[in-house]
Amino acid sequence: MSPTPAYDTLESTWTRLYRFGHLQSIAGWDQAANMPPKGVEARAAALSEMAALLHRMRTDPALPGQLARAEQEPLSELQRANLREIRREWRQSNALPEALVQRRQLAASRCEHAWRSQRPANDWAGFLPNLKAVLANAREEAALLSDQLGVSRYDALLDGFEPGMTSAQLDRVFGEVRSWLPGLIGAVRDKQSREKVVAPVGPFPVAAQRALCEQAMRLLGFDFDAGRLDVSTHPFCGGVPEDVRMTTRFRDDEFLVSLMGTIHETGHGRYEQNLPRELLGQPVAYARSAAVHESQSLSFEMQLGSHPGFVNRLSPLVQQVFGSQPAFEPQNLHRLLTRVKPGFIRVDADEVTYPAHVILRYEIERPLIEGEIEAEDIPALWDQKMMELLGVDTRGNYKDGPMQDVHWPESLFGYFPCYSLGAMYAAQWFAAMRHAVPDLDARIGGGDLAPVFGWLRDNIWSQASRWTTDELARRASGEALNPAHFKAHLEARYLAG
Amino acid sequence: MSPTPAYDTLESTWTRLYRFGHLQSIAGWDQAANMPPKGVEARAAALSEMAALLHRMRTDPALPGQLARAEQEPLSELQRANLREIRREWRQSNALPEALVQRRQLAASRCEHAWRSQRPANDWAGFLPNLKAVLANAREEAALLSDQLGVSRYDALLDGFEPGMTSAQLDRVFGEVRSWLPGLIGAVRDKQSREKVVAPVGPFPVAAQRALCEQAMRLLGFDFDAGRLDVSTHPFCGGVPEDVRMTTRFRDDEFLVSLMGTIHETGHGRYEQNLPRELLGQPVAYARSAAVHESQSLSFEMQLGSHPGFVNRLSPLVQQVFGSQPAFEPQNLHRLLTRVKPGFIRVDADEVTYPAHVILRYEIERPLIEGEIEAEDIPALWDQKMMELLGVDTRGNYKDGPMQDVHWPESLFGYFPCYSLGAMYAAQWFAAMRHAVPDLDARIGGGDLAPVFGWLRDNIWSQASRWTTDELARRASGEALNPAHFKAHLEARYLAG
Repeated sequence: MSPTPAYDTLESTWTRLYRFGHLQSIAGWDQAANMPPKGVEARAAALSEMAALLHRMRTDPALPGQLARAEQEPLSELQRANLREIRREWRQSNALPEALVQRRQLAASRCEHAWRSQRPANDWAGFLPNLKAVLANAREEAALLSDQLGVSRYDALLDGFEPGMTSAQLDRVFGEVRSWLPGLIGAVRDKQSREKVVAPVGPFPVAAQRALCEQAMRLLGFDFDAGRLDVSTHPFCGGVPEDVRMTTRFRDDEFLVSLMGTIHETGHGRYEQNLPRELLGQPVAYARSAAVHESQSLSFEMQLGSHPGFVNRLSPLVQQVFGSQPAFEPQNLHRLLTRVKPGFIRVDADEVTYPAHVILRYEIERPLIEGEIEAEDIPALWDQKMMELLGVDTRGNYKDGPMQDVHWPESLFGYFPCYSLGAMYAAQWFAAMRHAVPDLDARIGGGDLAPVFGWLRDNIWSQASRWTTDELARRASGEALNPAHFKAHLEARYLAG
Repeated sequence: MSPTPAYDTLESTWTRLYRFGHLQSIAGWDQAANMPPKGVEARAAALSEMAALLHRMRTDPALPGQLARAEQEPLSELQRANLREIRREWRQSNALPEALVQRRQLAASRCEHAWRSQRPANDWAGFLPNLKAVLANAREEAALLSDQLGVSRYDALLDGFEPGMTSAQLDRVFGEVRSWLPGLIGAVRDKQSREKVVAPVGPFPVAAQRALCEQAMRLLGFDFDAGRLDVSTHPFCGGVPEDVRMTTRFRDDEFLVSLMGTIHETGHGRYEQNLPRELLGQPVAYARSAAVHESQSLSFEMQLGSHPGFVNRLSPLVQQVFGSQPAFEPQNLHRLLTRVKPGFIRVDADEVTYPAHVILRYEIERPLIEGEIEAEDIPALWDQKMMELLGVDTRGNYKDGPMQDVHWPESLFGYFPCYSLGAMYAAQWFAAMRHAVPDLDARIGGGDLAPVFGWLRDNIWSQASRWTTDELARRASGEALNPAHFKAHLEARYLAG
């Protein structure tokens, strides 16, 4: 008989959860990439039946006893890490009463659905009562989680996306960035105003763009025997680690957004494809967190994809599919990819102004959840912070202001910080990589990406959820999150030379 | 409180089964149409976990009591029909011990997997022991089902695909067909030997074929807002009634097989798309049976798709995508679609010789299951019957003989008859339709397919599983299965004029 019966039982329950999650994930991808409009209702019913099953499994009254017994069993270090992650999942599923889960879901669906037409109509007044309903539920959820975790309300939500992260740490990190970012943006804008940039001339046929994206994915090591690239309205990386489903979208008057979006998703995809196989199905073998996931997509898109050496490799691929143009010369292509321009929209923002969008949202959603401000206060704060951080005037422009993102309508409070944490971690990984491989930039320029992939595989991908994010960062780079690397990266790329 | 609490409980259990079945079905379609090779193992694990869950739900010990109580409740006629179908599903899931189900599945997987390479190698000797193992399990299964249903062993398997059908009825129906079929084939061959047929000249680009198939589907009323056409190695019609996933395959040296295959699957697809919506999720709203399903695909492919009036509408579509050729003139196109030629392969057979392939398989698989013959006897019987029925010599040619189909390796004994029953029902439906709409053929020739779809919707699609197949046929056409309509159809199409 096994010396770890309780742990074994938990492991087999979590294997079942993983297998059911596989069907959920493929159906979710299909919904975005394939499903015809009349399939909506039946798919929603099927997915909600599955969500209910998974919730029932995760709130099985037998679990607390099994968890307690497993803690006493002679587990390996890896098993102990897995047990920690199982307990975490269990705690999150059990923290909220069923009625709140349903109420929250309903309010979010209603708000998100109405938002789709309210946003283009710039209808803040119509949006506000729905958002207030979403917020009321989110605050209730945060309060319950806060009691259970012993952290502040916002921190309790944040923990759902980035385990262990706190607003104290965010205040410090984002506060630091806030102190130098507006100055840096000004300096970069000033430098770039003296550079000539040639715009690409379209059209860019979709079939050629698709071929280009697939070539870039191959260059970046994506395994097409274990994944696909398809089209959806909102690009994402879904599927399962054994079968990664990436999506992108194409417009024939533009190609750089699709190409860089695809490179971004390829970073997510390779992380998933290279998670450790031995324990796959167990939480310890899942990707670490939202911020670490973003650190992979941004390692690919920003650190590597906009690296002048990599752009040298990209340039001939672009010319091969679209023919030669002055815009496609390496130096010009690099300028196109690193153009800095403050704007209204987060998802269109460049690498330098992006953190401003995130900091602004963090500075609004944290006090919103803590009850220090109300939803009515958002527009004025938005206008003030956009002016401070980016110098743009958003007054009266709700659709390109606080109504632009789907996150708040969908009650995803606590997610935004992960985007910028990911950018910071990515810079930190590349700093560590340069330390380990001193000629890294020359090798990237020579088309040798093996040191990049090798470092990421050894330090991030293969480690999955074995360590906390802090410990993962320390083991990979010798220190916990340090935004100085991000600053150094931006200065080197945007101000040097 | 509801006056039918037990029935209501059953209905909600079957709704859950339907929703889980949705995810199973979409994942099955994805596996055939999209999945990259390295996804195989994880998908198999996910699907088998789901199959186990569904089996557990269908064998819940609470069900017999609920079924018994529901029988006593004041149910509507429709609810009573639904209860009959629920009981039927329950009985089938509970008839077999878990160990046999697993053993049978294992033997079938092993046989089917080896068959993939044994068939091209013509390796009957290697195939035989695997087939014997599959057969032993199928006989055991048939014996258990036979005890429970009080019918013969083969009939017990047949009932799984075509509820209520018996070998006594098949003996009568197929015996009748057998009496006139060889003579009819000879007469048609003789007539056609005097006709000139021009072969189409390729290549036929895949994109153009795809466009042609989609146009044909639109012409046939397929709702693309509630379904899709994709590509897979073996064409099928999957998905769910609310979101039908049809597949086809293309070769650029040939287009008629894909086109007619697509028209065939469109018949399956429209049946599913037009099942009644009120009770969808309940067994009474599922398609009636395998034979009735085939009667829809063959109504589309054979009755309508090869109808001279319909071919007149198809001809300009073909010329539009491939340009003009003498082969594409309506009369020649019709000759291409109705060419009769005895051959080895069932799936390549024309409408006239097809029943011979089915009758032969029935005459072998029935005594095999009843224990009257052994697997070793198959080749000699095959050779003898192919010579009798089609005049072709199959001696020593196992790969194009008894090894050609996946059905026996997969233990699908009792399925083959449904193909020809479907062809017979399709002829019977069109005879009834002509009775109801005397100018039917002229209207089809004029491009007005509404009377066909209207009749099928009223009499077949909307009726789903409300009646037994026999009762459905009587209500639709005034009589139970009558193969005379099939004979009349073949004579009218292939010998008249």
